[in-house]
Amino acid sequence: MTISPSDKRLSHAPEPPYMAVIFTSIQNDGPLDGYSQTAEDMVRLAAEQSGYIGYESAHDRDGTGITVSYWENEASIKKWKQQADHMTAQKAGRNKWYRAYITRIARVDRHYAFENT
Amino acid sequence: MTISPSDKRLSHAPEPPYMAVIFTSIQNDGPLDGYSQTAEDMVRLAAEQSGYIGYESAHDRDGTGITVSYWENEASIKKWKQQADHMTAQKAGRNKWYRAYITRIARVDRHYAFENT
Repeated sequence: MTISPSDKRLSHAPEPPYMAVIFTSIQNDGPLDGYSQTAEDMVRLAAEQSGYIGYESAHDRDGTGITVSYWENEASIKKWKQQADHMTAQKAGRNKWYRAYITRIARVDRHYAFENT
Repeated sequence: MTISPSDKRLSHAPEPPYMAVIFTSIQNDGPLDGYSQTAEDMVRLAAEQSGYIGYESAHDRDGTGITVSYWENEASIKKWKQQADHMTAQKAGRNKWYRAYITRIARVDRHYAFENT
């Protein structure tokens, strides 16, 4: 079953299986120079990659962020990881913005949705 | 590789494969009676279930929430979905708190971590 949510904060979801990259991060204290601009740029750039489906993101006031991006297959994830501007952003993340993060690559086997109509 | 993050906002992660339940929700506007207490209760209750590994959660000011819980296998996820108090909470979520949500069940194939030391 395909899910096409009307609320754009939820990602479109094709018939499973498809892939998810779960990126959970803890920000450093202090100013995060350039973070917002880079985050915006990466969202735009990811959307241009082949195999991109969509993403969902939430950032807590305590510095925890979770971004899940969805992809058609492993190959598109590997290509995105190696994309030049994205690699620069990943490096800046480690050097400046993040105290710690975990990235998990997962295959979505099933999904279900609720929408209050 | 097992990941044992020192920051407790990140979940412990065993050697893959393991399972992830990605729950992305959009809250209703207005008061969310009982939501915080139920959310706390569910975190505590999940931790008592067999096969539970850990969870990560972030809630945006715009009402988007992402909670990812990690489980050893499919069977433990199915059992948790059917747990009585959890079913009551799911129903309250649909009736009172959430405008929309998507739940995705995924198998984590690989993961990597960064920690600034």
